[in-house]
Amino acid sequence: MDQQLYAALGELVIANRILAHEGVLDDFGHISLRHPGRPDRFFVSCSRSPELVDRDDLIEFDLDCKPVELNGRRPYLESVLHARVFAARPEVQSCVHHHAPSVLPFTVASTPLRPVFHMAAVLGSEVPVWDSRTEFGDTNMLIDDIPKADSHARALGSGSAVLLRHHGASCVGTSLAAAVFVSVRMRDNAELQSRAVALGGASFLTPGEIEQTGAMLLSERPLARAWQYWRARAGYSGI
Amino acid sequence: MDQQLYAALGELVIANRILAHEGVLDDFGHISLRHPGRPDRFFVSCSRSPELVDRDDLIEFDLDCKPVELNGRRPYLESVLHARVFAARPEVQSCVHHHAPSVLPFTVASTPLRPVFHMAAVLGSEVPVWDSRTEFGDTNMLIDDIPKADSHARALGSGSAVLLRHHGASCVGTSLAAAVFVSVRMRDNAELQSRAVALGGASFLTPGEIEQTGAMLLSERPLARAWQYWRARAGYSGI
Amino acid sequence: MDQQLYAALGELVIANRILAHEGVLDDFGHISLRHPGRPDRFFVSCSRSPELVDRDDLIEFDLDCKPVELNGRRPYLESVLHARVFAARPEVQSCVHHHAPSVLPFTVASTPLRPVFHMAAVLGSEVPVWDSRTEFGDTNMLIDDIPKADSHARALGSGSAVLLRHHGASCVGTSLAAAVFVSVRMRDNAELQSRAVALGGASFLTPGEIEQTGAMLLSERPLARAWQYWRARAGYSGI
Amino acid sequence: MDQQLYAALGELVIANRILAHEGVLDDFGHISLRHPGRPDRFFVSCSRSPELVDRDDLIEFDLDCKPVELNGRRPYLESVLHARVFAARPEVQSCVHHHAPSVLPFTVASTPLRPVFHMAAVLGSEVPVWDSRTEFGDTNMLIDDIPKADSHARALGSGSAVLLRHHGASCVGTSLAAAVFVSVRMRDNAELQSRAVALGGASFLTPGEIEQTGAMLLSERPLARAWQYWRARAGYSGI
Repeated sequence: MDQQLYAALGELVIANRILAHEGVLDDFGHISLRHPGRPDRFFVSCSRSPELVDRDDLIEFDLDCKPVELNGRRPYLESVLHARVFAARPEVQSCVHHHAPSVLPFTVASTPLRPVFHMAAVLGSEVPVWDSRTEFGDTNMLIDDIPKADSHARALGSGSAVLLRHHGASCVGTSLAAAVFVSVRMRDNAELQSRAVALGGASFLTPGEIEQTGAMLLSERPLARAWQYWRARAGYSGI
Repeated sequence: MDQQLYAALGELVIANRILAHEGVLDDFGHISLRHPGRPDRFFVSCSRSPELVDRDDLIEFDLDCKPVELNGRRPYLESVLHARVFAARPEVQSCVHHHAPSVLPFTVASTPLRPVFHMAAVLGSEVPVWDSRTEFGDTNMLIDDIPKADSHARALGSGSAVLLRHHGASCVGTSLAAAVFVSVRMRDNAELQSRAVALGGASFLTPGEIEQTGAMLLSERPLARAWQYWRARAGYSGI
Repeated sequence: MDQQLYAALGELVIANRILAHEGVLDDFGHISLRHPGRPDRFFVSCSRSPELVDRDDLIEFDLDCKPVELNGRRPYLESVLHARVFAARPEVQSCVHHHAPSVLPFTVASTPLRPVFHMAAVLGSEVPVWDSRTEFGDTNMLIDDIPKADSHARALGSGSAVLLRHHGASCVGTSLAAAVFVSVRMRDNAELQSRAVALGGASFLTPGEIEQTGAMLLSERPLARAWQYWRARAGYSGI
Repeated sequence: MDQQLYAALGELVIANRILAHEGVLDDFGHISLRHPGRPDRFFVSCSRSPELVDRDDLIEFDLDCKPVELNGRRPYLESVLHARVFAARPEVQSCVHHHAPSVLPFTVASTPLRPVFHMAAVLGSEVPVWDSRTEFGDTNMLIDDIPKADSHARALGSGSAVLLRHHGASCVGTSLAAAVFVSVRMRDNAELQSRAVALGGASFLTPGEIEQTGAMLLSERPLARAWQYWRARAGYSGI
């Protein structure tokens, strides 16, 4: 394995632990990374809770979700969700699928999730909602085949995040740090918007604020600062 | 003691610690396990908080709640609750009685608890409510004799969970992992449904989704993944 | 110092740590204990956060709040609150004055705090509210002299708890464990009642349930089980 | 470096860790300290999360936010916010800029933040709100130049705290401990006021209570007790 790939997979392990530590992922949910040298491949853990994921758990897939080598490991049933996001969105390098507790109410109530504070400008103007029933009727609610995964990727469109009705959310970025940043800010915005609704009603960022603030936040310095913080909190020394 | 029983009781200790660590059980509440070799017997701790339960605390009872051997230990006053669930439901292997903080509001307000996200499909379509006043009037609110325990088991019916008015809830499963899974998802669904109500109103899974998703979740792979996660979080190494 | 007193003061230190660990007390708030051999005396820490209290911090006072020996230690400004509760209530052995976050909303909104689940039966039928403005107008809001402390004790009456408008609450018991039990259940009931109101409206225990359940909970077995649990969680080994 | 300055910067490091530990600051946000010997200078960390700040991260600035010596360190983009507060308020020794989760809803909903319990008297009668759009229209929402920083300082006025619409809050004090005290009580009051609104509606302290209680709380004894508590919780021994 070349050095760049080795380092990238190490960061993917850390990203798993970060999202578990920050309460975005619990026993279910996952984060993937496109192969840094082969854009038609990506990595995601085998079926294991993110808090426990290690380097040996990472499985390489192609964009139809065919594993390169399983070695007896069992994939997540929803690995295909990641495959088809990578197929549809060439610039995306990382995808998170999660069930963050603060976000789930927006998949159950009909209130749209929209950025209410500067940090959440990375979500874009409004987060779309994908509903498995629309095309597929009653299911086991997993995105476990290519048709459902393609439908989910269409709902995501060109945005950074999508909600899954009665299920969870997916977030993407042009780097691991960016995908984690979007996920964490979705968690925070959902909590904040819910509290503002209870307090008397939420107001929102303007389109101009969303554009300028989102671009600023996804630049090198804020991402590096946040990543260093999350790494340290997840127990990785050497800041 | 044979090896299968020894292992099963070790898992029951771990289940106590898991439910304490996950905030389902606090100083009160308990989890029981049917004897793996004698279906007319079950085990539950003596009167001790689940976070502190050890192998020596486990007492064996028959299904009328007569202890096989007390050795000076004092039983939970509500051990009989478990006895009569095992008597009424031959397929049930484990029962949890808890007061999870997120669930309790559904025993105080009149809003029915119903699955609002995929993970909670294991609860079935709606969780019934048992009210001690209906048959027994004013009491000390414990399920501490066979008539109350039988009444509680009738309210549970053939389902996986029942709410106890102004008191708590009970959850059952065909294995320790399944009973813990139902309990944890009840905790999560209650939190989520409450938040969705506050945000603008909850919507629910369809009967078809509940059936398909519930069956999928209570299968071997999801239960194993969740159990491994909970074990590790409760401090048990050797994943 | 005799052995009984030495042991009692050790338990008072532990009670300080327990209430800090359980989130009932933070940087402010305090717990006191009547002298086990001299009912006209009591002990409470000098001005130090309960999480940090040690044996050397405990000051002995009489029931007019005159310290027996200060040794350079500075008392809590509100020590007199405890003095006058002990003066008014001969059977009370311990008093907690706290600002538990879940309880404070009931001192700010006009909703009465009433028991909504079995564990909170120890609060009695409804918790009275003391308002410093009624007799004393604008003050620095501390109970820092005998007239205010006597007024507060009158509001407590013969009950186990009283709310202080815009300030906090006080809880009493016939033992350290009982006073801690009332405080923790007040914390839990306040959280639960708030959640039930948000979910659709709270219902309450009947007077008969409050009487029977309260008496059962304040008996030896439940108090011992809860105390063992809290001790262990606060880091005291030797269960 | 003289001994007084050395000690003061050590306390500034501790204040960073305290505010991180208490959940007032997360990956973003900062606390500054005026130079104890040169009132035209102040210190704030380079661009690093407060939980990770160390002595070597502290940068000295003048009140136009010109750094004395960068040594390759990158400043916070919002350091100028602190500079202009120190320029406008000669008596202020410390300034906190934060995004405490409980406070943010008051920057999104239109409900004013007002003291609802005694500890929050340090906030004054009502916390003003600064909105970047009023003078500057759509921006990246940072206070990153002198005009915005001066506008923010004008909104703060002579008070102890100001809210930033869709962004966060700033708190000041005549000492590090006072600025931290105001920040922590703002966090607590926001949580409490939100809960009281949900429970049935908040009531407020009177102007007389605010004045008397605020003065008492910002005196030596309460500040020392709280600081000792926070220090210990943040892991600094030697109480």
